[in-house]
Amino acid sequence: MKIGIIGGGSIGLLFSYYLSMDNNVSIYTRTREQADAINEHGLHLVKHRIEHTPAKVTAVPIQEWKGNDDLTVVAVKQYQLDGLISGIKDKAKGSILFLQNGYGHIKLLSELETAKVYVGSVEHGAVRKNGFTVQHNGLGVTRTAVYKGEDDLLRELSTIAPSGFPFILEPDFKEMLIKKLVVNSVINPLTAILKVKNGELIYNPFYFEIFKQMFYECAQVLDLPNREKYFENLMTVCEKTANNHSSMYKDIENGRQTEIDAILGYLLELSRSKNIKAPLIHNYYHCIKGKEHEREGT
Amino acid sequence: MKIGIIGGGSIGLLFSYYLSMDNNVSIYTRTREQADAINEHGLHLVKHRIEHTPAKVTAVPIQEWKGNDDLTVVAVKQYQLDGLISGIKDKAKGSILFLQNGYGHIKLLSELETAKVYVGSVEHGAVRKNGFTVQHNGLGVTRTAVYKGEDDLLRELSTIAPSGFPFILEPDFKEMLIKKLVVNSVINPLTAILKVKNGELIYNPFYFEIFKQMFYECAQVLDLPNREKYFENLMTVCEKTANNHSSMYKDIENGRQTEIDAILGYLLELSRSKNIKAPLIHNYYHCIKGKEHEREGT
Repeated sequence: MKIGIIGGGSIGLLFSYYLSMDNNVSIYTRTREQADAINEHGLHLVKHRIEHTPAKVTAVPIQEWKGNDDLTVVAVKQYQLDGLISGIKDKAKGSILFLQNGYGHIKLLSELETAKVYVGSVEHGAVRKNGFTVQHNGLGVTRTAVYKGEDDLLRELSTIAPSGFPFILEPDFKEMLIKKLVVNSVINPLTAILKVKNGELIYNPFYFEIFKQMFYECAQVLDLPNREKYFENLMTVCEKTANNHSSMYKDIENGRQTEIDAILGYLLELSRSKNIKAPLIHNYYHCIKGKEHEREGT
Repeated sequence: MKIGIIGGGSIGLLFSYYLSMDNNVSIYTRTREQADAINEHGLHLVKHRIEHTPAKVTAVPIQEWKGNDDLTVVAVKQYQLDGLISGIKDKAKGSILFLQNGYGHIKLLSELETAKVYVGSVEHGAVRKNGFTVQHNGLGVTRTAVYKGEDDLLRELSTIAPSGFPFILEPDFKEMLIKKLVVNSVINPLTAILKVKNGELIYNPFYFEIFKQMFYECAQVLDLPNREKYFENLMTVCEKTANNHSSMYKDIENGRQTEIDAILGYLLELSRSKNIKAPLIHNYYHCIKGKEHEREGT
């Protein structure tokens, strides 16, 4: 399959590396420098501290993207999607898989005229070491689901996926994304502000009180149909990643922009439109925005 | 006047130093070691980086306290008061001035049989450098008010107070303590969790949103009669101390127990007894308790 991957961040590099094993992969980067570096050095993957054989992929600056691939994987942050979506709408001829966190970007997808639109939820941990090297830390799965059209390309993905990089086809895109949104809404901001590893949220009895309250508010705002199922999933993720620092924790530590708008920003807007009080969501949204503002030094 | 000061922490040492200028001061310490050190070295004060002439005070272990002073100043944290109050009740013959933060200790004062009971609110910044040296950082005032009996000793205090250590007599003990409680409830936990100086709470527009919400909840729970007045006072304190780190910030940074129970713990209980929802008070109470728990390493 001819696969195009938009985005040269950690997830874009990770997907390019693994999918290039059985497919013809082109990666589209924001800068020409990064494209040149990938074409020169090949794409490098570090896993379990071992540097694996570099992969051969074609790297192209995003300005030169033609939209001719069978499947385009959009691997940018949700806050970068606004600037890309009209180009995608105009050029994409094949199917598209969107990997953004949150739920706010779903309203953009209805504008796409292409026949098959998919969404995914990535449960891998990855860090970009430089423009052509990605480190694969947390080995997880990629969940995918159909937003529009036939699911044939997703089935193919889960069949051809290399070992160590599985794809799972989920029946309901909304449930899949909301499950991830709940996890991100509770674990990310709390760990980033309390400056603790994920597990502390359930092992420290005082933090666990906040954890439960925060889940409760998310469940209210999202009007979750089967709360126990979502809470269990949240607990399981927290236990499995107990020794990890969340992505938002690391973003704040490293002075990077976070995905707070895609996560709590979405829930805050939803709570306002539904006229539901969400004091903790409001609080942690402003805590994280305040941290980002501190960084700007204004 | 014969003044006894209970407590060898920063506030106890600060009051002992200044009041010894015109009074006969005895300081009662928890350990015999500290009493010996003060008797040997005298009491040292550092202000504006200058070491002032040591003061001569009599230091005595608290076990040997007789309660014979004209005025006893109780300068321990509110969480240490429970262990002392029955001794004070049994022995104190003169008047007593309580300097604790919070409002929860007020219910203990009704049990005292001594004729004059006063309360105070300290607006000085002080750090204990060692058992016999205190550093006077934030030059402020001590507000005092009558809880029970005549105000004559408080009037005397405000007359004889040395320059740089003024006492102000306030007409209403409840309003005085609640004003301080509101300031402590908003500034202390927010700065300790967000790890910022006091001024950031009003200069960072995102933190200011939380600041206002937190004040609003406190005002609700305390049923404040004239909210604008309390909010103005809170803003003024925040502006005046903009470059300072709050005491709770420093307690958390240094792994010490905080006064959270006297401050948000009191408000949380009050909110429950009044059946008022107070999600931010609940949240920040548990954030700080969780930080204290982290320190315990359990």
